[in-house]
Amino acid sequence: MSHFFKVKTLDDVLSMTRQFGPTDSETVDIRSAFSRILAQDVRTSGDMPGFRRATMDGFAVHASATFGASESTPAWLEIQGTVPMGQVPDFELAPGRAAWISTGGMLPEGADAVVMVEHTQTIDDTSVEIYKSVAPLQHVIDANEDFSSGDVVLAAGTFIRPQEGGLAAGLGLTTLPVHRVPVVGIISTGDEIIPIDQEPAPGRIRDINSYALSGFVQEAHAKVICYGIVKDDPDLLQGVCEKALAETDMVLISGGSSVGTRDFTVEVLSSLPDTRILVHGMSVSPGKPTILAQSGTKPVWGLPGQVVSAMVVMKMVVIPFLHRIQGYREPKPLVRVPARLTRNVASAQGRRDFVRVMLETGPEGVTAKPVLGKSGLIRTMVHADGLLDIGENLEGLEKDIVTRVILL
Amino acid sequence: MSHFFKVKTLDDVLSMTRQFGPTDSETVDIRSAFSRILAQDVRTSGDMPGFRRATMDGFAVHASATFGASESTPAWLEIQGTVPMGQVPDFELAPGRAAWISTGGMLPEGADAVVMVEHTQTIDDTSVEIYKSVAPLQHVIDANEDFSSGDVVLAAGTFIRPQEGGLAAGLGLTTLPVHRVPVVGIISTGDEIIPIDQEPAPGRIRDINSYALSGFVQEAHAKVICYGIVKDDPDLLQGVCEKALAETDMVLISGGSSVGTRDFTVEVLSSLPDTRILVHGMSVSPGKPTILAQSGTKPVWGLPGQVVSAMVVMKMVVIPFLHRIQGYREPKPLVRVPARLTRNVASAQGRRDFVRVMLETGPEGVTAKPVLGKSGLIRTMVHADGLLDIGENLEGLEKDIVTRVILL
Repeated sequence: MSHFFKVKTLDDVLSMTRQFGPTDSETVDIRSAFSRILAQDVRTSGDMPGFRRATMDGFAVHASATFGASESTPAWLEIQGTVPMGQVPDFELAPGRAAWISTGGMLPEGADAVVMVEHTQTIDDTSVEIYKSVAPLQHVIDANEDFSSGDVVLAAGTFIRPQEGGLAAGLGLTTLPVHRVPVVGIISTGDEIIPIDQEPAPGRIRDINSYALSGFVQEAHAKVICYGIVKDDPDLLQGVCEKALAETDMVLISGGSSVGTRDFTVEVLSSLPDTRILVHGMSVSPGKPTILAQSGTKPVWGLPGQVVSAMVVMKMVVIPFLHRIQGYREPKPLVRVPARLTRNVASAQGRRDFVRVMLETGPEGVTAKPVLGKSGLIRTMVHADGLLDIGENLEGLEKDIVTRVILL
Repeated sequence: MSHFFKVKTLDDVLSMTRQFGPTDSETVDIRSAFSRILAQDVRTSGDMPGFRRATMDGFAVHASATFGASESTPAWLEIQGTVPMGQVPDFELAPGRAAWISTGGMLPEGADAVVMVEHTQTIDDTSVEIYKSVAPLQHVIDANEDFSSGDVVLAAGTFIRPQEGGLAAGLGLTTLPVHRVPVVGIISTGDEIIPIDQEPAPGRIRDINSYALSGFVQEAHAKVICYGIVKDDPDLLQGVCEKALAETDMVLISGGSSVGTRDFTVEVLSSLPDTRILVHGMSVSPGKPTILAQSGTKPVWGLPGQVVSAMVVMKMVVIPFLHRIQGYREPKPLVRVPARLTRNVASAQGRRDFVRVMLETGPEGVTAKPVLGKSGLIRTMVHADGLLDIGENLEGLEKDIVTRVILL
């Protein structure tokens, strides 16, 4: 069984998201909708704010009554009343008159602007001097200025930030249609892996990956089910895989970083019903021994067993992939910040390299300092603030170049 | 009651975090510790990985036995056996011999390096040719290379990312001491504000702020209790404030953007027992009418009622503040990305201005385009991807300048 032709670039793998549909939609309380993805367009059912609203404390006026007013030649207006907060004024503003109004208040019929209190002087209970002219709609939000009835204000595929949630609240939506949170199954494999609450005998090592991968999945606002540690036995792995596929939306199998066990994961995946291998090897370092299969409609990943490789593949490929199957309209961009490299970094052509770096802010800006140490050392990821991204066509990056570092 | 002397800069307000202690600590399952803050230093209780471990498939050797080996003059070694995964080899490697080993396997006593399988040729069951010399510890992680026993590997105040969680798992920690998640009480005030499930009569507006502010608090990994809408009545507000202070770690009162109601919030806060006003006005736009009080040991914020102002103050001040009282060792930096400004933007000296911008990625990099529209319009925050940050000493920013935009 040869899959060598299935070695893909990172971009190839990301574009395979299209083969997998997004999770279905569900309706949730608006308070639970933050950080989720809108599943349908949201339209306004009315104008917003729906009435002409003051944005300053002062006097509601006919703007034309203030034209030419200044410190030396103030306009004199009769005070017709006070606008009560939260209520419709019970009067229409007569020409040449003014009404006291607070921020957020509704302009009386006839008024089209507000003069800030700072530019007025109340003479007595019935009259006020205006020292500055205002234009129509100055210090006012018009009835449909935020949104007009029928506008699509939030499109399907939008990530719901605080402001999108606030807008929905303003529209009176107590619930929102969002994509269901995907459930991700995590399986750790390897005869040398033991549960974390056990003391490892020499030659054995605790199950770091189940926990580190769970952290990434949680960061992507998805749910985790851990299926524990499976010994290097095809029948056992097949059984656990089938269970995980039945219970989740996506399965991650970590381990099998050696040539023998890598083939073993591919064999197990190939023998599952209705399953095909899409990727067998990725031209990314660290992270080459990555496998992607499609089982029925669901993605199954074989991740490198090596901790740093598994984490780089999660960050660069699996999490963006998971964002897409949550219904994101556009891929959520990774956050990149510019930093000056403190030393030369070598790379191989034909391979996308990700190098762990520490970021330090100094007087001359941010520098990126490569973290030394083998990629089997989790400490190198703990010390790292970001990843240098060295493209396939480069042989490395030179000292002092300013490059955009992906934040970890 | 004049508080005009309490107008502060944004940096002054942020530095006031020191007056408030972090939340106490609690011990949680490691799976619940992601995105929380470590409350104590974590030390290793043993070496990690604890044994000499292969990082490649190949042959475990004495490095010295391979010196000078090349394609034309291979070294010839006798195969002594195979290292079983997850077990201690039951033999010591004799001089001039090699043992088959998989990635992750434990080197036999005597071996100090691994030759990659690609650089070997097995002649028969008992002998192998080596085509490349290896240095001592090449393709090997030494017993204490990740961590040595007794090292502080994670310091109190560390934000727990996937790698920190993975490291803790590797150390056998099933629980971690973390700062308790702060509980934030949110109170909306204003006679014109109605619950979101009601149809607003003209002059009234739905309670956007309770929801938008909840979104920010959730983003900062804290919990929200909403105390609903309180009419502009000092006794009512005082009662709800006292209840919220008793039940939460920090209180946010939104509303009162007009001069009258702003004073009213200050009066209510001043009349609470053991409470003093620390900030009354902040030299930030939008966001000037911001109040910070200390009631007992707890912070109480009076936020502008205007939606955009309230959100800017949350993003720039309250959330960083909330990070600090969660025990962050260093303030979590805001994410800033460089972008070229598409037009001149004016600002006033002596005031820190935050201008909403859309980010667009084009062939010449990322541009920042100011979002037009009054700051009372929530749409302007929904359309914005980030905030321009214009310092107190600037009169604006010029078209085509490259500036660092704070991501929203």
